[in-house]
Amino acid sequence: MSGLVRERCQACAPGTPPLPEADIAQLMDQVAPAWIRSGPGLRRHQRTSDFAEAFGLATRIALLAEREGHHPELRLGWGYLEVELTTHAAGGVTRNDFIMAAKIDRLLEPSSGGRA
Amino acid sequence: MSGLVRERCQACAPGTPPLPEADIAQLMDQVAPAWIRSGPGLRRHQRTSDFAEAFGLATRIALLAEREGHHPELRLGWGYLEVELTTHAAGGVTRNDFIMAAKIDRLLEPSSGGRA
Repeated sequence: MSGLVRERCQACAPGTPPLPEADIAQLMDQVAPAWIRSGPGLRRHQRTSDFAEAFGLATRIALLAEREGHHPELRLGWGYLEVELTTHAAGGVTRNDFIMAAKIDRLLEPSSGGRA
Repeated sequence: MSGLVRERCQACAPGTPPLPEADIAQLMDQVAPAWIRSGPGLRRHQRTSDFAEAFGLATRIALLAEREGHHPELRLGWGYLEVELTTHAAGGVTRNDFIMAAKIDRLLEPSSGGRA
């Protein structure tokens, strides 16, 4: 499991630079392959068995987001949940997004026991 | 307040026809002006003060959806919540979508006390 899950998101002032591409490439290897680059951020699409499962996962991600002070965009409906991560203050991806991605992976992987 | 809020969503078999345009136009007058036609469905965008407010409203809509057996697509992030209603079995808008829209209006209008 990625060491990112032991980190905490840090407050990010406007003007913080996004990560260099080389760093992003390295960190992409530390999160699930389901994460893809999408516009300025990261996106993961997860199939679910129905609406309730999608909303249940969204709820756990929402609580994680409040704890970390770093908030994703969520899209969900019957049978799917989609998570988008971007650091708006940086206009792109920062380490915070990868910390969130790694912790969300832990919630979404049934084999992990879902702790985050 | 629209009489739609006293109705319940009805089970909808595949092949159910979408509403004729004249009926849609009439029902659009019974829901909040914030609802717009969007692709095959209806969409309402709501600003919120932060992520927690958006997720709180989404939670109430999710519980309503489970009660009615009719599920929207939700998109939310820091400062906004967006709701999309379509009847997939009909490939368009049915009365169920307007029943949901009217009940969601009641949740989103602070002056209503938020009962649904």
